[in-house]
Amino acid sequence: MAQKVTPRILSGFMELIPAEQLAFNAMADRVRALFENGGFVPLDTPVLELSEILLAKAGGETEKQIYRFSKGDTDMCLRFDLTVPLSRYVAQHQNELAFPFKRYHIAKSYRGERPQKGRFREFYQADIDVVGSEKLSILYDAEVPALMYRVLRAVGLDWFHIHLNNRKLMKGFYAALGLEEKATDILRLIDKADKIGLDNVRAGLKELALSESQITRILAFVQLSGPFETVLTKAADLDIQHDLYQTGLDELTAVCRGLIALGVPETHFVVDLKITRGLDYYTGTVYETFIDDYQNWGSVCSGGRYDNLAEYYTDRKLPGVGMSIGLTRLFDLMKAANLIPAGRATTADVLVLPMGDVSAYALDVTRQLRDAGIPTEIYLGEVKFKNKMTYANKIGVPYVVVLGEDEAAAGQITLKNMQTGVQETLSLQDVVLKLQTLGTAEQDESCV
Amino acid sequence: MAQKVTPRILSGFMELIPAEQLAFNAMADRVRALFENGGFVPLDTPVLELSEILLAKAGGETEKQIYRFSKGDTDMCLRFDLTVPLSRYVAQHQNELAFPFKRYHIAKSYRGERPQKGRFREFYQADIDVVGSEKLSILYDAEVPALMYRVLRAVGLDWFHIHLNNRKLMKGFYAALGLEEKATDILRLIDKADKIGLDNVRAGLKELALSESQITRILAFVQLSGPFETVLTKAADLDIQHDLYQTGLDELTAVCRGLIALGVPETHFVVDLKITRGLDYYTGTVYETFIDDYQNWGSVCSGGRYDNLAEYYTDRKLPGVGMSIGLTRLFDLMKAANLIPAGRATTADVLVLPMGDVSAYALDVTRQLRDAGIPTEIYLGEVKFKNKMTYANKIGVPYVVVLGEDEAAAGQITLKNMQTGVQETLSLQDVVLKLQTLGTAEQDESCV
Repeated sequence: MAQKVTPRILSGFMELIPAEQLAFNAMADRVRALFENGGFVPLDTPVLELSEILLAKAGGETEKQIYRFSKGDTDMCLRFDLTVPLSRYVAQHQNELAFPFKRYHIAKSYRGERPQKGRFREFYQADIDVVGSEKLSILYDAEVPALMYRVLRAVGLDWFHIHLNNRKLMKGFYAALGLEEKATDILRLIDKADKIGLDNVRAGLKELALSESQITRILAFVQLSGPFETVLTKAADLDIQHDLYQTGLDELTAVCRGLIALGVPETHFVVDLKITRGLDYYTGTVYETFIDDYQNWGSVCSGGRYDNLAEYYTDRKLPGVGMSIGLTRLFDLMKAANLIPAGRATTADVLVLPMGDVSAYALDVTRQLRDAGIPTEIYLGEVKFKNKMTYANKIGVPYVVVLGEDEAAAGQITLKNMQTGVQETLSLQDVVLKLQTLGTAEQDESCV
Repeated sequence: MAQKVTPRILSGFMELIPAEQLAFNAMADRVRALFENGGFVPLDTPVLELSEILLAKAGGETEKQIYRFSKGDTDMCLRFDLTVPLSRYVAQHQNELAFPFKRYHIAKSYRGERPQKGRFREFYQADIDVVGSEKLSILYDAEVPALMYRVLRAVGLDWFHIHLNNRKLMKGFYAALGLEEKATDILRLIDKADKIGLDNVRAGLKELALSESQITRILAFVQLSGPFETVLTKAADLDIQHDLYQTGLDELTAVCRGLIALGVPETHFVVDLKITRGLDYYTGTVYETFIDDYQNWGSVCSGGRYDNLAEYYTDRKLPGVGMSIGLTRLFDLMKAANLIPAGRATTADVLVLPMGDVSAYALDVTRQLRDAGIPTEIYLGEVKFKNKMTYANKIGVPYVVVLGEDEAAAGQITLKNMQTGVQETLSLQDVVLKLQTLGTAEQDESCV
């Protein structure tokens, strides 16, 4: 063969080497185990959807980023999130589902964003949503972040805060100030408060022709801080006369108390009247999550409540609440921050090394170890022992079994602990007992 | 909102409702657990690849089926299998990998085939491959089907046969008969023997202007049958003088003996000199797997040995051997054949039903059950008890916890077994003990 094609992937895509892939999968497995522990069922929708479906609502920046193409007469897209497919799924299968429908979905989405650090064009999301028929208890707005709290702890993040706000509260606040028409512009400014600073927010509000008294009230409102009970009390004392404001306050109170009842410590969530979740379709509670030492990562887990999930596909009212973790991005950030421990490049606990003409015995030992539930690799092929040990070290396998003609004749096994270097000759049964203990210990650890 | 978009998916795509999805995931989990038990590491490559990479070799029918499009200046495709991405990956990361490199990959591929029963345009494949540097022991040609044997048993298939053949043996056979130039046409005919019958193969061979004696020898050869030792002995006795024939025979012998040493019973594999795996890139061993009662499903697990996996991307010689299960198709076929037991539509073992104003207590009980590792769902929202029980029955949860004001006051729990109807009032601790036993029992079952 003459000309070679340079092996490479598309720019902005992530690909991992085996040790990294095992670490990523361990993370995804923990997420999945906790989603299932919380009683959420898995969904798996097609990566490709009809453009008519996926773009029923989309617009603006997102639409430009979408991978859209035709094959034959069919105009299709790669999904850009897991929420639109969920809304299509729920509308399509509404008669086959039990409501409230609680699903999780861990899968890839696609956005042709400009490649930059921590942003990928193909990325895993880990989403949970609860969708009700006609109505949905506000307590699910606590259930969802409570589960995400457990998930973030389980993947190795200790110090983070889930920030809560409520769109009704915001809407009621600006309506009470007579600022309904300017609310969108104001929220857009407030949303940037952490980035641009409050002085610039103040300047921006002035440009919107707000009175000094309005600006003062707004800045006092969005800066309310402290333990959630304090913030809620202060917010109640602001003398804002508007039904929506009161409703939003009641909802936030129910969500905070629900979080406490579900075991989320007060050290890990906060009522933050600055967060707005952009101009998304949320209508009630909204969430963002920031890691204490890594504020610059932005929100690693966001979401909110929406009144009507599937309005583009059905007349049935389907309110929902959900949150999403950008798993690929989180993994990439944690790896860069050395929060992902370096692991081995094999799933095996033991590597069988046949020495000499003992392959039948070695294959049989391998089979018996595997049958006993011990992940086992066998090195086949005649190379020098040194090369086999190099391989063992390279993949980081914790134990090696050496089988020569002596072992085959005696039906024994030489087991070497690769960490301590200790080597002993044992019966197959003793090796199984020894390695099963190891396996169980590791499994317990990973099963949260 | 006025006009609704009819919620639907692209034709030829598969989507499952929750109970089916859980069954599919259980199947995929078993496959994955056994791949890892065999010491194969997971890979996850991008779904999208540069067309230049993916089409370096492809051609003919496959190329027409590919989802190919451009975004900006980039010409890209959705992958149509997991083997081409593997070859690109191994060439690209060769200096970071340990050889022999053993990887599994369970993921979706895309082919715009004409939709038909059991054929999907988006489908999961479950692949294992072993890739060596420069050379690779023939015993890996036994290791790969031995693992697939375990996998197929684990997903619930009892009676099937892995059919083995060897390209070198075939090539040597036709060369010895002076039919080198016609070998491709002959193999194409032989490959269809099971579909068109031997009489039609004979007629076809005549059309290729073969002599009666050549036809007789070919038909005798491809019809050799019986236990593998018998077939191999008969094949050795055919008086075919060609080095490649002898090499192929030696390889087949080593593979069969390896399968026995790895615990694959003789009842489940067979040397079948009729199978050829089309005109693929295989150069040695080839595999197909047929289920005894469902021959019409075609091969459910196929593959083979290739001399040089990544020749389009690197000069380094990387021989490999691999097999692939079409998981989506297999699941669809097994479902249609009632080989997939109907299961529940929830991951939870227990559903908590708060009655009256006890949500703080109910949320706390839920948290404690989840912390104890018991998958727990909670039904929030004020609806009639009857409606909550309808929901419990619809999702098929095995236990329900009923928490009213009496239970909250006494710190007790009423646990109902949904299958037997038996109801008892217990402490939280006793409920945990009871349900943990249940969970462990089920987990053991699913962990092979």
